[in-house]
Amino acid sequence: MTIFDEATAVTLASPGRYQVRPDERFALVAPGGATPPAVNGGVMVATLLRAVLDTSPHPYPVATSAHFLRVPLLEPGEVEVTWLKQGRTAATARAALVQDSQIVLDVTVTTGSLPEDPLANGELTWTGEPPQLPPIEECVNLGPWRGTVGADGTAGYAAHVDLRMDPATTGWRRGEPSGVPEMRGYFGLREQRDPDAYLLAVAVDALPPVVFGLGAAGWAPTVELTWHMRAVPAPGPLRVAARCRHVSGGWFDEEAEVWDGAGRLVAQGRQLARVGRSARRPGPA
Amino acid sequence: MTIFDEATAVTLASPGRYQVRPDERFALVAPGGATPPAVNGGVMVATLLRAVLDTSPHPYPVATSAHFLRVPLLEPGEVEVTWLKQGRTAATARAALVQDSQIVLDVTVTTGSLPEDPLANGELTWTGEPPQLPPIEECVNLGPWRGTVGADGTAGYAAHVDLRMDPATTGWRRGEPSGVPEMRGYFGLREQRDPDAYLLAVAVDALPPVVFGLGAAGWAPTVELTWHMRAVPAPGPLRVAARCRHVSGGWFDEEAEVWDGAGRLVAQGRQLARVGRSARRPGPA
Repeated sequence: MTIFDEATAVTLASPGRYQVRPDERFALVAPGGATPPAVNGGVMVATLLRAVLDTSPHPYPVATSAHFLRVPLLEPGEVEVTWLKQGRTAATARAALVQDSQIVLDVTVTTGSLPEDPLANGELTWTGEPPQLPPIEECVNLGPWRGTVGADGTAGYAAHVDLRMDPATTGWRRGEPSGVPEMRGYFGLREQRDPDAYLLAVAVDALPPVVFGLGAAGWAPTVELTWHMRAVPAPGPLRVAARCRHVSGGWFDEEAEVWDGAGRLVAQGRQLARVGRSARRPGPA
Repeated sequence: MTIFDEATAVTLASPGRYQVRPDERFALVAPGGATPPAVNGGVMVATLLRAVLDTSPHPYPVATSAHFLRVPLLEPGEVEVTWLKQGRTAATARAALVQDSQIVLDVTVTTGSLPEDPLANGELTWTGEPPQLPPIEECVNLGPWRGTVGADGTAGYAAHVDLRMDPATTGWRRGEPSGVPEMRGYFGLREQRDPDAYLLAVAVDALPPVVFGLGAAGWAPTVELTWHMRAVPAPGPLRVAARCRHVSGGWFDEEAEVWDGAGRLVAQGRQLARVGRSARRPGPA
């Protein structure tokens, strides 16, 4: 079993109720340690998706919307799953992570089928232009970046994901933000594990916050994130391109597209997040 | 009281429970009348938002995610609101429209504040390029378009909204789809009513389905729609630009941006929908 599968595991406690434990191996620790460690939002969503898919009549989470209410504690919690509809084409469930009798993360998931080969059945098929990334060997191995290292400097999120960033989007690391709120890079785990729906849930929230490109710094907590799974990913690193359309009043949006090794658009996400309050510039940890 | 405010009204029945009635004046009727009329999804979301905002500690629905489970019936229903968190910066509620003991529409809403003038307080502010539309007088008054007229040919959704489309995106009306899944137009009501959060909920789902640009036809039911309110809209018609990134397996996404008369990005939406099954080409009703 991989570290990622361990970290997102759920254990059936009773019908519709699952025991989980947010895992410090995917935690983010704010510089200075002023706030408690927070597990990466995508990893938490992946955990709840496991609970939902355990009893889903359809195999894939085609639409997942998540509202992040509180910072998950690094201690046991319970996921409660309630099916709202189970239909022929789609089924919809609510799932909530509860810790200390409070909802930490609330998701609504619509599951459905995705075609193995949409071209084979003559259905309408169309895809926009893919993002342009340099070859992976020309990209920047992000290593531990500020806000992603564990308490001991290595054990958190950054130690378990492999991010290779388009150098055009990494000027913030040396105090020279590009002035454009975009991030692009290759994403995978450091351990050997092929992408699936659970890893796509992480990929849509895997890159540094797009506002780092505007000189913002600090932890940028996600308030709401919705992602759509569009195809079953092929093995290999995922290409992720994220952009922003608007920043104001402390809110910013981040739209991420995820393309697989076979050149297919496999996931789309959009989140609304808060601009980090830290006055420090982002940079290497 | 305007027709739109009447159609989206809620009446408090008991704490957290509101009586509503999906309104035929914003209904869509599929050509041939084979399926029952469905009220426009945005109008239904606006109705649920009224129930949520009735007891919200914050004034604006900054993030609303909606999963559409069943076709609303044109008869009374009940909206149940449950607050999951009420915090200083944001509050989150679930709301569900229930008819005949079944959930028809399930939304999760995070409310918050939006700045009157983000430039005034020195916060980080940035906006991408606005969509390019021709002047409104050069746009196509869509009038009643297939799928949007009421049972008597005039009384439904199309009779109550004022859509002026960029002619570059209306070739489908004469059987000549552009080949690009994009729609752009000016949106308002036919009656005099300034935009607000409720009307933005409609604007993000107001245009003809983007897949009409690829030659698809028929009703394209929304499965999931999430939208973010980014600013309080100024009076006047809204500019709406929608695009699609991927169509396959009967699923397509539609991303809409809404800009106000003062040139500000006021709302962003993305939905996952089903490609219509009708074999008929779209066109004038």
